[in-house]
Amino acid sequence: MSEPAERAQKLDAVDELADKRAEFVLDDVVYLDGNSLGALPAVVPGRVEDVVRRQWGELRIRSWEESGWWTAPERIGDRIAPLVGAAPGQIVVGDSTSVNVLKALVGAVRMAGEGRDELLVDATTFPTDGYIAESAARMTGCTLRPVAPADVPGALGDRTAAVLLNHVDYRTGRLHDLPGLTAAVRAAGAVAVWDLCHSAGALPVGLDEHGVDLAVGCTYKYLNGGPGSPAYLYVRREVQDRFDSPLPGWNSHVEPFGMRSDFEAAPGALRGRVGTPDILSMLALEAALEVWDGVTVEAVRAKSLALTDFFLECVAAYVPEGRVECVTPVAHGERGSQIALRCDDAGDVMKRLIDRGVVGDFRAPDVLRFGFTPLYVGFADVERAARVLAQTLA
Amino acid sequence: MSEPAERAQKLDAVDELADKRAEFVLDDVVYLDGNSLGALPAVVPGRVEDVVRRQWGELRIRSWEESGWWTAPERIGDRIAPLVGAAPGQIVVGDSTSVNVLKALVGAVRMAGEGRDELLVDATTFPTDGYIAESAARMTGCTLRPVAPADVPGALGDRTAAVLLNHVDYRTGRLHDLPGLTAAVRAAGAVAVWDLCHSAGALPVGLDEHGVDLAVGCTYKYLNGGPGSPAYLYVRREVQDRFDSPLPGWNSHVEPFGMRSDFEAAPGALRGRVGTPDILSMLALEAALEVWDGVTVEAVRAKSLALTDFFLECVAAYVPEGRVECVTPVAHGERGSQIALRCDDAGDVMKRLIDRGVVGDFRAPDVLRFGFTPLYVGFADVERAARVLAQTLA
Repeated sequence: MSEPAERAQKLDAVDELADKRAEFVLDDVVYLDGNSLGALPAVVPGRVEDVVRRQWGELRIRSWEESGWWTAPERIGDRIAPLVGAAPGQIVVGDSTSVNVLKALVGAVRMAGEGRDELLVDATTFPTDGYIAESAARMTGCTLRPVAPADVPGALGDRTAAVLLNHVDYRTGRLHDLPGLTAAVRAAGAVAVWDLCHSAGALPVGLDEHGVDLAVGCTYKYLNGGPGSPAYLYVRREVQDRFDSPLPGWNSHVEPFGMRSDFEAAPGALRGRVGTPDILSMLALEAALEVWDGVTVEAVRAKSLALTDFFLECVAAYVPEGRVECVTPVAHGERGSQIALRCDDAGDVMKRLIDRGVVGDFRAPDVLRFGFTPLYVGFADVERAARVLAQTLA
Repeated sequence: MSEPAERAQKLDAVDELADKRAEFVLDDVVYLDGNSLGALPAVVPGRVEDVVRRQWGELRIRSWEESGWWTAPERIGDRIAPLVGAAPGQIVVGDSTSVNVLKALVGAVRMAGEGRDELLVDATTFPTDGYIAESAARMTGCTLRPVAPADVPGALGDRTAAVLLNHVDYRTGRLHDLPGLTAAVRAAGAVAVWDLCHSAGALPVGLDEHGVDLAVGCTYKYLNGGPGSPAYLYVRREVQDRFDSPLPGWNSHVEPFGMRSDFEAAPGALRGRVGTPDILSMLALEAALEVWDGVTVEAVRAKSLALTDFFLECVAAYVPEGRVECVTPVAHGERGSQIALRCDDAGDVMKRLIDRGVVGDFRAPDVLRFGFTPLYVGFADVERAARVLAQTLA
């Protein structure tokens, strides 16, 4: 047995999250793409069947009350809350991440108030955030300015209304300094909006603790909610009264069944809701979140760093030097839960890796992306992935 | 047997859609709330199970291509198209109706061009449409003017950018004159946006034929897609190049996986997509649409009118005169697929009706609403509903 393989055995033996793997539907593939689509939690299929056959099929319209459909967006939001460091009553689930970015950014500009007409956006952001930021700027009369996250403090000024940042970069896996950047944005009198797609469920976020005003995130990566499962919106309690959504639907109304022609926003985070919630996907997500019972984000973070450290060790041991270049920061404080390796022919290499049972993904033009989901990836998986990578590159 | 009961037997015997009822999961309740939440098509549970267990659980990320997840929004849009009189390539499924109303209205104002800064909205609209219209007006620098649909032609002018109308009024069941109103709006140089929530799947819409530019609708009423299933957006082929969405997500991009920082809209209706599609709900809807195989909307409309006519006959026969007042127009050309009866204590009356196995719904302040879904409601159901209503009111 190779030295890394022996190390893997020892690390797996003391992994306190090892038992969680049995709560997922997995096969003999090494699945390192949970940062794109989380694996299926075993509890989900039965729950979805109940939602379809009994709640919809038998109770039909009565389920809006009797099966708790109506309150699902805020109930599931409260279930996500501890995973991102939020007290209850500040998160609602629904719509896609893109739609929630629009809510948050337009809401942020309106919150920032008169005289502030500049919107800063992470220049390296996942594209959709940039597109939506441009739309939000256009519809609120702001100018949009792309800025590298590290340059945000120097770019803030009296005109800055809001800043949209990614907690973890989708491509490089770089973890940005949420506490520091949020403090800088607040000190400048602007509103920070964080996109948590690549951090929630993988590392501590601390929304309440760090004074974040608005945040959004998806639920189908580290939260395992299923393909395209609904996203969420966090609105800090202190600013909820000032949150003025660009999507005031009947579900955002203080009296949704009053069918009033005048709009009066619901109190609290509820005003982040819009239309009829998408129940099948939402209740699949609710079931999926049960795998978090008894798990702390801190334990997940510790294992995530151990997994990515170990992957880098194994790559160094197996892959000839210079064949790949790690673009993910080595410093723990700057690393999310993925490793991105730059490599020639990355697209082809990933195809061959997948054929050999190691599933990551390719991000144009030259990045191999490997996501490490501590709830179901073990150290032997990591060793095997690096070994197969070396074989593939040989 | 009473005379209406005998008539019901005869009508059911010659009902060419009678066999369709077996394709739904139903019990001995008379379900007249399919205009709120359609009943479960029997094909759905098995399909959803396959999507969850095999497509997500086994294929995982590969399903985006192998299970056709990626193209679901436009594929399912094309499945809805014939039901609303649209040729393929003009409808995408996704997001809620409210979100699609925002896309359509902002898109309509931008399409109408310079100098047009007034937005007209049906004054009797389902509230969410009015709230979103107000938001769209605010974000495009327009003024919003509520107008009764019949008064729209007189309210149109050089400044009118767009007009948002409901094909069928959610409360009264009144069918508005889509061909005539669309022609008037177009003649004034403005853009008509139709909300088809209460008409699609119940009566012919004729989007292409009547020159509608933009339309939206939900899929959980007469299309039986399930609670909160995704809505759709129709963008007429001729105006697709000018459709400039306020929600340009990565799915609206010409090259979604190019991860480009500059936005370039996809050609065609695809630019109406936004973020990652909600696969579980979307594929449940796709399965649900199979009940339309071999059914024409014209046949559905003929039965719908027969059902509502017969309900009014039975109510006249059983319910003491003056006890209820029909607020749905009697003329076929002005009637959707529901009957709304005004009545004292409508809220209590509906509760008692439901206890006796007749499920409709209550709309504040005083309306009993009964929806007739021709695919699974028969004439004996209608007779029973009227009879139980009379007993309840006695």
